[in-house]
Amino acid sequence: MPEKLCIVGVGLIGGSFALAARRHELFRRIAGVDADPDNLARARELGVIDTAHADPAEGAAGADLVLLAVPVGAFENLLRALKPAWSETTIYTDAGSTKGSVVEAVHRVFGAVPANFVPGHPIAGREKSGVTAADAELFQRKRVILTPTAETDPGALLRVAELWRALGAEVAEMPAERHDRLLAGTSHLPHVAAFALTHLLGRENEREDIFRYAAGGFRDFTRIASSDPVVWRDICLANRAALVERIEDLRGELACIAGLIERGDGDTLRRIFADANAARQRFLELFENHHHA
Amino acid sequence: MPEKLCIVGVGLIGGSFALAARRHELFRRIAGVDADPDNLARARELGVIDTAHADPAEGAAGADLVLLAVPVGAFENLLRALKPAWSETTIYTDAGSTKGSVVEAVHRVFGAVPANFVPGHPIAGREKSGVTAADAELFQRKRVILTPTAETDPGALLRVAELWRALGAEVAEMPAERHDRLLAGTSHLPHVAAFALTHLLGRENEREDIFRYAAGGFRDFTRIASSDPVVWRDICLANRAALVERIEDLRGELACIAGLIERGDGDTLRRIFADANAARQRFLELFENHHHA
Repeated sequence: MPEKLCIVGVGLIGGSFALAARRHELFRRIAGVDADPDNLARARELGVIDTAHADPAEGAAGADLVLLAVPVGAFENLLRALKPAWSETTIYTDAGSTKGSVVEAVHRVFGAVPANFVPGHPIAGREKSGVTAADAELFQRKRVILTPTAETDPGALLRVAELWRALGAEVAEMPAERHDRLLAGTSHLPHVAAFALTHLLGRENEREDIFRYAAGGFRDFTRIASSDPVVWRDICLANRAALVERIEDLRGELACIAGLIERGDGDTLRRIFADANAARQRFLELFENHHHA
Repeated sequence: MPEKLCIVGVGLIGGSFALAARRHELFRRIAGVDADPDNLARARELGVIDTAHADPAEGAAGADLVLLAVPVGAFENLLRALKPAWSETTIYTDAGSTKGSVVEAVHRVFGAVPANFVPGHPIAGREKSGVTAADAELFQRKRVILTPTAETDPGALLRVAELWRALGAEVAEMPAERHDRLLAGTSHLPHVAAFALTHLLGRENEREDIFRYAAGGFRDFTRIASSDPVVWRDICLANRAALVERIEDLRGELACIAGLIERGDGDTLRRIFADANAARQRFLELFENHHHA
């Protein structure tokens, strides 16, 4: 059994990784690093980590595996803090929700992507955040996308994939650009839309108390608007080009529907809604086969 | 106990009303009318209704209460079918999701709103439809909005409010215009946004299999895109002006966020996301206090 795991950013994802690794007895001890002293202290109290460190280089020293699970906007500074103590015998991986930006940050700091850095993304977000939201079962039957570069060491890649599989996840590999394009649609755009709608109606609620007449559909639609604002600010800025394009696509789709409503074109409206209904059915079959197989 | 309830449109709402009325023993017998012979036969088989009728006037004959629970686009024809046998000793009410359009349809057919017609809307939709989705508990702790006109008989209004309360609902009264403006934001706009996003990504899924990498957040965000296309086509057309305005508001909000992302204005982005997050928290407290008190 390898000796030491270091988690940098002991929030929902980092904390869940630590809990799951402990349950599966994958490491003898777990060091935790977090910029928020309260969250770090709580992680220690809850037994999610064994030792708590404010300094990333100190926490990572001598680790077999280091997982970087901080908001993607914090990567460059984190990598600079780790660089002086970067170790050839450690495998580094991350859980950032955008992959192009992480690889670019690594490039900026190291001039190239070190062979022992494996970029990754567990698709396992929830709207809750912080170590108190951590859950040893979070990665069960979830997908993890690894986006190795040409420089990535195949042994390090294999080791990271094995670890995720040991935690119950299914691992896929693809280029960072494809990851970012896919996630812009299925994750980043829905989050932006939920934030936008909730922000819009929140202003009106102040005046008109409209939330009193909102129902379960609204609750589900806006669930992701309860996600962490810093994490999502960082994701939006990190996946700027792909996301802005998707937002424009959605604005176009909404303009099209508004036009159909104005012109009273019920046949086309019904067809669009029926197509959406059928598309969601296909998603649901995929999702449920996968998660409840 | 009044003798007879007639449900016109034995779908999710009409079927649930029938099941709940039966459980609470509010009527001796329940007649059902439905344009879809299969749905009507199923309602009879499932014991949701006692007698099945294709003709609305036949089903409504001699009823103490008639509930109109058809898609709002079907109201005018339905009212024309009921008009020859319209009875002064019957109370008529409806469950249409838009109220201005229903009142207008009544006006067109009767020249005025009959005193014994009480416009109403139970805020209790689900993404499932048809009588097989009916649930005797559907209205428990849900809000029902009644939108009486100046002509509405106070006794009829009171009777309809009492009925909904007997089924577990909480009843509010407001003008039809206010109802339509509120629901345009909290219900109709989220449905349109979910249909739009799912339609947009559904096309891409055909090419790129992107749903494989969508997660629980996407499932919840798009849940309402599984709603009935005909019901929602009718709602969009019936609440045209208020809804088109809200769609434009959302397009503006999305343009604002896209602009902030393009300009890299992380501070404002974070503030908008935090405001949305806080607004949803206020909604959630209201919703959970209400539904689980």
